Amino acid sequence: MSQASTSNQRIVLASRPKGAPTPDNFRFEQINLPDLVDGQILLKTLFLSLDPYMRGRMSDAPSYAAPVEIDGVMTGGAVSRVELSLHPKFQEGDLVVGATGWQSHSISDGRNVMPIPAGLPSPSMALGVLGMPGMTAYMGLMDIGQPKAGETLVVAAASGAVGSVVGQVAKIKGLRVIGVAGGREKCKYVVDELGFDACVDHKSANFAEELAQACDKGIDIYYENVGGKVFDAVVPLLNAKARIPLCGLIASYNDQQAPSGPDRLPQLQRTLLTKRVRIQGFIVFDDYGDRQPEFISAMAPWVRDGKVKFREDVVDGLENAPQAFIGLLEGRNFGKLVVRVAQD
Amino acid sequence: MSQASTSNQRIVLASRPKGAPTPDNFRFEQINLPDLVDGQILLKTLFLSLDPYMRGRMSDAPSYAAPVEIDGVMTGGAVSRVELSLHPKFQEGDLVVGATGWQSHSISDGRNVMPIPAGLPSPSMALGVLGMPGMTAYMGLMDIGQPKAGETLVVAAASGAVGSVVGQVAKIKGLRVIGVAGGREKCKYVVDELGFDACVDHKSANFAEELAQACDKGIDIYYENVGGKVFDAVVPLLNAKARIPLCGLIASYNDQQAPSGPDRLPQLQRTLLTKRVRIQGFIVFDDYGDRQPEFISAMAPWVRDGKVKFREDVVDGLENAPQAFIGLLEGRNFGKLVVRVAQD
Repeated sequence: MSQASTSNQRIVLASRPKGAPTPDNFRFEQINLPDLVDGQILLKTLFLSLDPYMRGRMSDAPSYAAPVEIDGVMTGGAVSRVELSLHPKFQEGDLVVGATGWQSHSISDGRNVMPIPAGLPSPSMALGVLGMPGMTAYMGLMDIGQPKAGETLVVAAASGAVGSVVGQVAKIKGLRVIGVAGGREKCKYVVDELGFDACVDHKSANFAEELAQACDKGIDIYYENVGGKVFDAVVPLLNAKARIPLCGLIASYNDQQAPSGPDRLPQLQRTLLTKRVRIQGFIVFDDYGDRQPEFISAMAPWVRDGKVKFREDVVDGLENAPQAFIGLLEGRNFGKLVVRVAQD
Repeated sequence: MSQASTSNQRIVLASRPKGAPTPDNFRFEQINLPDLVDGQILLKTLFLSLDPYMRGRMSDAPSYAAPVEIDGVMTGGAVSRVELSLHPKFQEGDLVVGATGWQSHSISDGRNVMPIPAGLPSPSMALGVLGMPGMTAYMGLMDIGQPKAGETLVVAAASGAVGSVVGQVAKIKGLRVIGVAGGREKCKYVVDELGFDACVDHKSANFAEELAQACDKGIDIYYENVGGKVFDAVVPLLNAKARIPLCGLIASYNDQQAPSGPDRLPQLQRTLLTKRVRIQGFIVFDDYGDRQPEFISAMAPWVRDGKVKFREDVVDGLENAPQAFIGLLEGRNFGKLVVRVAQD
């Protein structure tokens, strides 16, 4: 069997960013794929997920995962369809999800992909509310956050893939939920559509005061996926025994060196001590990979029954992925950002 | 019944310190105690405990406990003997421990004291290895530290009341234990007498490098009771899924404002995320008060069998408490600091 005619479009890392990524850091390429051998499948990418963690993979600073090599295909999760199969467990037409990267096609031995959950209205949901971002939201909230009815939770990037799920699950658990988002339109969506109790605009000149007003009983859980000034405004409002699950720091991903002073570390340490606060970082598949069935069985009914709503921001065309990703780091997306790589 | 002749010597807070406390912040007084009424006991202080947390009580910044009022008696734990009793549960001669303050005598309704554990070689041990510092060491290590045999633990102030117990319990649990202490004499004691695997002198010009060499497999638990430069040297050495129980920050207790930059907070946040670290502050009696029986039943046999050793630094005379406390904040004590207020 031969697919010498299968042309693959892909985006590789051309150079490592200094600070915020620019289009120059990416290169669009077209190559021909080699022939399949026994045990392999040919995948056609339908939807590519764009997520903040990818910024870390573009750098070679020490991190929890190896960086993308220069000239290597950008890493990323995607939903694909099996086009050809020489693997006994896969059939042509199967829909799978896995870390197949920023490209139109890929060849897999089946170990980096798995079937998408059954019954999804759109297969792209396997990249969002029922995929990595949804599971990040659920596990961090439930395992580290330990939510209790009547408590107050704050989550930033509240209209985004993780924050929107954190807040809606916390509402289901009986908490008072305050979102933080950028701009009036996102805040309105968070309250009117997602059902948060309030949402504070971090672009407001009086952001810290407005957050304090919204949290009149203090903060018991701060789900941290942003860092930066939201964190600063949250710290003075923390209640005794507050919990801070930490899954992302998008506000500082582009920083190249420690910001100038004052040094805020001693103040944080004092707050952790006097308020007896727990803060804990986690990487969802490393720390909770074995609990995916628990996550799916909790989340799938909520999504089906409309208790957890989910918004996608769909960009068409692989060639537009770099610009969309740059916008993601600036908060320009509205909802879970995915790239439609193929129409069918 | 009257004790009009009972003269009480006491040390009150004369003024709030700006930065490090000075002798001017304290005032020695002598007053006559009022008569006992039914339900009260008259206590004679034998040993007063001096502990770093008292620095926090001298300030009126928001904290987990109310500050000492100006002209109020300095708060502190002490071992006392019942001199007179109009309370059915106490008899003259009973030895009790409780927060009776920096004074030679006190009147109690019995609610702020309890009997000292039976069979202590010296009653002052109820202020140390079998008291608040020992329980702070034990609960933070066991509940937040979650020690596992073969892991590496680092603890600062390793010859002190808390650090010495943390390290010895960790050795009992099969960990590799690295202490940090100030000066050659303390380091020698920590290794030769307490049985730590190594001890690094934080006064060394190459402290960070020497700590890294001693922790050749990284750090799984950092028991934080100091803050400052020890914390800075520890952060780059943390292993994935490290735990940091946080019970004190003596290095910054005298700070009046945030130190100048660089701002180290973003780097700490990144480490928490990429290494999936848990850091958690705690206040021993608030968080673990109900687990005191578990602590005593574990620690008492270790102390009796010599598996946990304990050193006291005894200062004679209540009038010397202020100077001894100022020295404690500078690390001038060697072992658990107590003041012998009365000879019998």
